[in-house]
Amino acid sequence: MRIVLIGRGRLATNLERALLLSGHDVVSVNSWMLEALPQEADVFIIAVKDAALSDVIHAATKGREGQLFVHTAGSMPLSLFEGCTSRYGVFYPMQTFSKERSVGFADIPIFLETNDKLSLGILRKLAESISHSVYQLDSDDRKFLHLSAVFACNFANHCYALAARLLEQHGLPFSVLLPLIDETARKVHELHPLDAQTGPAVRYDENVIDMQRRLLAGHPTIQEVYDVLSRSIHELTKEDNDIFNPQNYLA
Amino acid sequence: MRIVLIGRGRLATNLERALLLSGHDVVSVNSWMLEALPQEADVFIIAVKDAALSDVIHAATKGREGQLFVHTAGSMPLSLFEGCTSRYGVFYPMQTFSKERSVGFADIPIFLETNDKLSLGILRKLAESISHSVYQLDSDDRKFLHLSAVFACNFANHCYALAARLLEQHGLPFSVLLPLIDETARKVHELHPLDAQTGPAVRYDENVIDMQRRLLAGHPTIQEVYDVLSRSIHELTKEDNDIFNPQNYLA
Repeated sequence: MRIVLIGRGRLATNLERALLLSGHDVVSVNSWMLEALPQEADVFIIAVKDAALSDVIHAATKGREGQLFVHTAGSMPLSLFEGCTSRYGVFYPMQTFSKERSVGFADIPIFLETNDKLSLGILRKLAESISHSVYQLDSDDRKFLHLSAVFACNFANHCYALAARLLEQHGLPFSVLLPLIDETARKVHELHPLDAQTGPAVRYDENVIDMQRRLLAGHPTIQEVYDVLSRSIHELTKEDNDIFNPQNYLA
Repeated sequence: MRIVLIGRGRLATNLERALLLSGHDVVSVNSWMLEALPQEADVFIIAVKDAALSDVIHAATKGREGQLFVHTAGSMPLSLFEGCTSRYGVFYPMQTFSKERSVGFADIPIFLETNDKLSLGILRKLAESISHSVYQLDSDDRKFLHLSAVFACNFANHCYALAARLLEQHGLPFSVLLPLIDETARKVHELHPLDAQTGPAVRYDENVIDMQRRLLAGHPTIQEVYDVLSRSIHELTKEDNDIFNPQNYLA
């Protein structure tokens, strides 16, 4: 297909590579160079920062009525296109992209939404040319999907960052944690994360929890993270036991 | 070596397997069967729950003066052995173990501490027979190491669990997150987690943050986790920029 890709960020860079590898004809345009935007394409993909998305949609669609436009933002609704053009959709590859690492698209789930059936067929064909994991999902559910990705990626990574901070203050390299981080991620391929949960917070072991809180006395924000996550682990474990596992009361 | 292993939990089960594979002679004993404990061994390894550790140390060392005893608990000090016996140490393999998954020991960092040099030599030989990543670390630093493991493993896994909860309430399977979880873990092999951090909290994008908070209105604890982690990400990013990256002010 002939694709016009607007944006030069992490997602756009990785998506362009995947589209080219699958044999598509891709024209890449910076979002501040929209004067150079071609008039026609099978799909115009707008992959810019959330904050700029609305402005870029207005500028890019102008004078291109009848062309198919999509954005790639997980947390942004389809309705951003309303009033701007008549054929539109969302093409959301759920992954964390970096310029430093090139990511294979084959396993990345892509979530699609359109305002008409014909466009959905075109997007599905495009998505399936780069990934074997393609879903249709409306804007409301996609918001929760994106939020779950914030937890599984952004927040998990922040836990790594706090761990790194604690280690580095004691002269230990972050790399000693990598086998543990890898196994924690691998484990949830086989066990549900509720069943994989370990650590003092599961049984709310107050001796260990109090001792660990004291270690964080000089770091009020990290201590607050520790408190809130420990409580949340305990609540979710308890809730899970209450709902699904009545025999736990018999132990 | 001739090893006596006390405990039948997740760590003990995995450690026994690794010791046997490396050709050691291992006798395994339940912590409530200490009457059956042999009188002699090159190393007695006590791998039981933190809460039971002190009692088991008292019972196991009795009448075995001169034998080398170690425990495997990251958050527990060497001093637990004081007054019980004269040769002792800590042998802490930092990993998350499950009975369902057998874990290769070769990459697992093992942290050692002893009350004398001779014992350290013995433990080092034992540790190096199952892992290529062996460190000496005192009890104070090990507490922080263990705490960092709580963040990188227990808390990261809890972020997966909250993500699973959000997805399942919207009819989406947890498995759609696995490519993202894997890439988040792989990324920090190449980038420091501070450099790998993405998401709305990095720039404290209040539009997205407010919208996502509202999605969690029915889940007060998850909302609190969201708030505290978003603030912590923003603080750590800012601190990192302030300290290490003055050119950020020029952007």
